[in-house]
Amino acid sequence: MSKKKSIEIGDDEFYLADDAEEMSSGVKIIPLGGLEQIGMNITAFEFGESIIVVDCGIAFPEEEMLGVDLVIPDVTYLKDNIDRVKGFFITHGHEDHIGALPYVLKDVCVPVYGTCLTIALIENKLKEHEMPKKVRTKIVKYGQSVNVGDFRVEFIRTNHSIADAAALAIHTPAGIILHTGDFKIDYTPVYGETIDLCRLAELGKKGVLALMCDSTNVMRPGYTMSERTVGKTFDTIFMENSKKRIIVATFSTNVDRVQQIINSAEKYGRKVVIEGRSMVNVITTACELGYIKVKEETFIPVDMMKSYPDEQIVLITTGSQGEAMAALSRMAANLHKRITIKPGDVVIFSSSAIPGNEKNIFKVINELEMIGAKVIFQDAHVSGHACQEEIKLIYSLVKPKYSVPIHGEYRFLVAHKELAVKMGLEKDNVFILSSGDVLELTADSAKLVDKVKYGAVMVDGLGVGDVGNIVLRDRQQLSESGLIIVALSIDGASGEILSGPEIISKGFVYVKEAEELLEELEEQVNATLEIIIERQICDWNKMKSLIRDSLADYLWKRMKRRPVIMPVFMEV
Amino acid sequence: MSKKKSIEIGDDEFYLADDAEEMSSGVKIIPLGGLEQIGMNITAFEFGESIIVVDCGIAFPEEEMLGVDLVIPDVTYLKDNIDRVKGFFITHGHEDHIGALPYVLKDVCVPVYGTCLTIALIENKLKEHEMPKKVRTKIVKYGQSVNVGDFRVEFIRTNHSIADAAALAIHTPAGIILHTGDFKIDYTPVYGETIDLCRLAELGKKGVLALMCDSTNVMRPGYTMSERTVGKTFDTIFMENSKKRIIVATFSTNVDRVQQIINSAEKYGRKVVIEGRSMVNVITTACELGYIKVKEETFIPVDMMKSYPDEQIVLITTGSQGEAMAALSRMAANLHKRITIKPGDVVIFSSSAIPGNEKNIFKVINELEMIGAKVIFQDAHVSGHACQEEIKLIYSLVKPKYSVPIHGEYRFLVAHKELAVKMGLEKDNVFILSSGDVLELTADSAKLVDKVKYGAVMVDGLGVGDVGNIVLRDRQQLSESGLIIVALSIDGASGEILSGPEIISKGFVYVKEAEELLEELEEQVNATLEIIIERQICDWNKMKSLIRDSLADYLWKRMKRRPVIMPVFMEV
Repeated sequence: MSKKKSIEIGDDEFYLADDAEEMSSGVKIIPLGGLEQIGMNITAFEFGESIIVVDCGIAFPEEEMLGVDLVIPDVTYLKDNIDRVKGFFITHGHEDHIGALPYVLKDVCVPVYGTCLTIALIENKLKEHEMPKKVRTKIVKYGQSVNVGDFRVEFIRTNHSIADAAALAIHTPAGIILHTGDFKIDYTPVYGETIDLCRLAELGKKGVLALMCDSTNVMRPGYTMSERTVGKTFDTIFMENSKKRIIVATFSTNVDRVQQIINSAEKYGRKVVIEGRSMVNVITTACELGYIKVKEETFIPVDMMKSYPDEQIVLITTGSQGEAMAALSRMAANLHKRITIKPGDVVIFSSSAIPGNEKNIFKVINELEMIGAKVIFQDAHVSGHACQEEIKLIYSLVKPKYSVPIHGEYRFLVAHKELAVKMGLEKDNVFILSSGDVLELTADSAKLVDKVKYGAVMVDGLGVGDVGNIVLRDRQQLSESGLIIVALSIDGASGEILSGPEIISKGFVYVKEAEELLEELEEQVNATLEIIIERQICDWNKMKSLIRDSLADYLWKRMKRRPVIMPVFMEV
Repeated sequence: MSKKKSIEIGDDEFYLADDAEEMSSGVKIIPLGGLEQIGMNITAFEFGESIIVVDCGIAFPEEEMLGVDLVIPDVTYLKDNIDRVKGFFITHGHEDHIGALPYVLKDVCVPVYGTCLTIALIENKLKEHEMPKKVRTKIVKYGQSVNVGDFRVEFIRTNHSIADAAALAIHTPAGIILHTGDFKIDYTPVYGETIDLCRLAELGKKGVLALMCDSTNVMRPGYTMSERTVGKTFDTIFMENSKKRIIVATFSTNVDRVQQIINSAEKYGRKVVIEGRSMVNVITTACELGYIKVKEETFIPVDMMKSYPDEQIVLITTGSQGEAMAALSRMAANLHKRITIKPGDVVIFSSSAIPGNEKNIFKVINELEMIGAKVIFQDAHVSGHACQEEIKLIYSLVKPKYSVPIHGEYRFLVAHKELAVKMGLEKDNVFILSSGDVLELTADSAKLVDKVKYGAVMVDGLGVGDVGNIVLRDRQQLSESGLIIVALSIDGASGEILSGPEIISKGFVYVKEAEELLEELEEQVNATLEIIIERQICDWNKMKSLIRDSLADYLWKRMKRRPVIMPVFMEV
C-alpha cells in the first residue's frame, strides 16, 4: 500500500493500492445479517483490499429459539478477512443497528464511526460489556467524510425516531452507494433539522451508482407524519386528564418522544419520573449531550413520587411492546417493587406494535384495565420510517442506477422492488439480496459473484454460539411433552441389572396422575429388558435405543405424546 | 316437579316448580369460560331448579402453555349440578363455540340444541371423538323456541361469518335475556336472509331484561361491510390474474366465503380443489345440507389438478392464520406432499390476522414470495362481527335494562361498557363479568351473589387435565435452558457411592462445547459429595438438594443459565 495512484470520479479523489484495479473492478455489497426470517442490519462493502461494514445490529429471537436471549450475526467472513476490515460505520443508535457491536468487536476490533449520540450509546454498551481491548470510536459530524482504504464515507443528516440518524454516501472508485439507514422525512423535527435533501439531490445530480433504501414502511401509502404531531396529542391528553396520574410507555431510544412528554409535563406543571433501566441509561446520556432540554427541577426520583399528588406526575417507562420483564409489564402484573398502578391512572402506549408483540401488548392492556387504569393505545405515536411517497422522493432526488432495498421482511423488499420499477428503474437493476450474497457493481454492470458464510449466532446468558439447532430441537421436544428418565444400575462385569428400572418424569404429567402411568412404563421397560436378556444384547447403545423405542411407541399409542426419553445406565 | 303453577310475563307462559319463587327470585348468569386472558364461550343460566348452558367452546393455548393442544372450560359447576342441567344451546358452529362439546358432554351428557348447520358440525365432531354415550341433538329453526325447565329459548336469525348463526332470546320468569352470539348485520348476505331485526325490535318493545352482546369489533367505528363485497373482490382478482393459478386460504367454517370463491371460479371457468382436513370436512357437510351451491363438475380431487392448466384451477385451503401444520403453511415451506407452490401462483389470504398470529402469517407470506408467488393479504376479507354502529342499532332496538358485554378481551368489554353508557344505560347496570361470577338479575335488581368454580383445562394429546401449572413450569424451565442429570449408584447398606457422578445434559449446550463444561460440573458435584461425606449426610433428599443448589449456583455464575438439574440416585 506504499505506492498509490489517484483516480478522479466527479469531484472525489481516491488513492488506490497499485493493484486494486486488477484485483477487482467493482464494489461489492455483502449483507451478512443472518437467516431468512431474521434480519440483522449489517452489510459489508468491499473494494480492492478494503472492507467497511455498515451497522452491526442484533435481532430478537424467533419463537422457536427457546431460551435464547438475542441473536447476533455470524461474522466469520469479517474474521477471515480481518486485515482488510477498516471500520464500522453506524447509521444510528438503535439496538438493531448497534446491539451486536460488543460481541463482534471482540473478534473484529476495528474503529467505529458514527454521529455524536450514536457513539455515546455505543460507548454505554461497551462499558457494560467490559471489552477486552479498548475500542476506538470516532464521532463524525453531518457533512463530514471518513477516508478509509479505498472508501470515503460521508455522513448525511436524516430524520428518524432517534436523533443523530445518518445516511451514508459511500464513495468508491466504482461509484457512489447511498445507504439511507432508517429514515423518514420530517420537515418539523423535534430536535435538529430536516433530512439533508439538498445533499441527496446533489449526489443524484453527480450520479449515484446504487441506492440502499429503508423498506420498513414501503407497504404504506402517503407520508409519515412529523414527530412533532405527537407533541400536540400529548398536550391534548394532558389537558383532558388534568386530575390523573399519567404514565407513558415508549421506546427508550426515542429521545424526541421523551422530549415531547417532558414539554407537555412542564407545560401542565407535572414532575417527570423515568423508570426502566434502558430508559434511564438513554435519557441520562441524551440529557448530558444536550439532546434533551429539561428544566432542572422537572425530573424527580421514583421515591419522591409519593410527595406529589397524582395530577403533578408523569411517569415515563419502558414496556411499550409488552415485554414481560419491562417496567410497565411488571407494574400491570403488580410485580413492580416501587410503582403500583391505581384505578384512574392514565396509561399511554406511545408506540405501535412490532409484529409478533401484539398479544403481549394486549395482555398488558387488559391487566391495566382490570386494575381500573384508562389505556390510550396507538393515538400518541408516529412511525420513524418513510412511507411510499417519501421513498419516491428519495428515488427522484438520488436517481440511482441500481437499487438494493434494505431493512424489512422479504415481502417488504418485494414491494420496494415494485416501487423502484414504478420510479423508472429497470427491473433487472433492483436486487433483493439474501444474506451472504456478494453483489458486484461497476459503472455499467451488476452481478452476483459469490456467496460467503453468514448466519445467526444465538446468545443465551453468557454463552455466545453454544446453542445450536440440536440444542434447540431438544429444548423444543422437552417443552412440548417433558421428559422421562429410565435409570438402571448394571454390573460392569456380568452385565446383570443390579437395580432399576427407575422411571422419573419431569414436565410430563401431574404427579397425582403419574403414579399409575409410571408403573405401566416400568412394566413396559421390564418387558423390553426381558427381550434384551433373551436375545443376549449387551451393547448399551442398542439396549438404550430398544428401551427408548418401546416406550415412545407405548406413549404415543396410549396418550399421543412424545416426551424425551433418556435411559441412564450406571456401571457398578 | 309434579305440581306446577303458571306465571304470566308478557305473552309468555311459564310453569314453575312449586317452590321456585322461594328458592330463587332471579335469573342467574354465570360465565364459565376459563382464565383471564383466555375466553372460552360458555355461559350457564340458572333459574330455580333449571340450568341451561349457552355455547361450549375451546380456546387455543397461550404461548406459555407449552405442548398444550387446546384448552377447554372447567365445568365442575355443571357436574356438581348435573341433575339440574337441561341442555346446551349453541349459537353457531365455530370452534370457539362448539369445540369443547365432545369433552364436556362426556361428563355432562344433556341434549344439544342448535340450528341445522350448527348441529351438523357438532355431529361431525362427536363422530370423530367416539362418544361413550349417544348424545341427543336437536335442530331448531329460526323463530322456534325450546322449553326446558324454567326456560324458553328462542332462536333468532343473525348474520355471521358462518351460516345458520343465531341469537338466543332466553325467556325466564324474571324477564328476557337476549344473547346475540357472534353476529354482524348483513343486509345482503350470501346465504339466507338478514338478521331478524324485527323480532329484536318486538322483544325490545316487550321489554328485555338484559342484553349480552358481541364485543369483538366494539373498538371499530362504523359498520362492517357485507360478506357479499368480498365476492366482488374475488371477481376482480380472478379477472386480473386470468393466466395464473389461484390459491385462496380462508377459515374452513366460512362457508359463505367458500361459496363466493366457487362463484368466481365458475364464472371464470376454473375447477375447484379443496385442501386441508377441516376444510374438506366442513365443505362436504355444507354441500350435503345445501349451504353451498356448486355445479357438479366444479370440484375436482387434488390428484386431477395436473390435468388442468394453471388458469383453470382454484385451490381453496386452510392455513390463513399461518398455522404451522395447516395445508398452506406446508405448501409454503415446501413440505406438502401433493401441492407445490410455483413462481407466478397467486395466493390470497381471505382473512385477517387474529392477534398473536401476525408473525406466523408474515412468515408464510415471506416464504411464498421467496418462491415467487404473488400474495394478496387482507384485501379479500370482511369481518363477521358487528362494529360500533351495528352494536348501537342492537341497543336501540332491544333497549335492555341491563347489559353484560360478551366475547372479547377485557379491553373490549370496557369499551363496550362505555358504548352502552353512551346508549343510555346506567353505568351500574352494565356488568363486566369475570369467569365464575354469578350475577343475579330480577326485574328491578342486579347483583353479584356468588362465585363458582371455573377454570381452564388443558388438553395435551389424549390427556385432558393431566397437565397443570407445575408441569408447565417444568416444561418452561426445560425449554429455556435444557436439563442436566447427575446420576449416582449408591450402596443401599453402606451408603457408599459405587459409581458416578455421571453428568448427562440435554438441550443445554452444543456437544462440542459440552465436554469441558461437563467435566467442570463433575468436579463441582465431587466437591459437593465430599462435603456430604464429611458432614455424614445420609438423607437422599438432602443430598440431592445440596447437589442441585451447588450446580445451579455454579452454572448461574459461570454462564447465567438455569437448566433443570435432576439428581438420579440408584440404590444397589
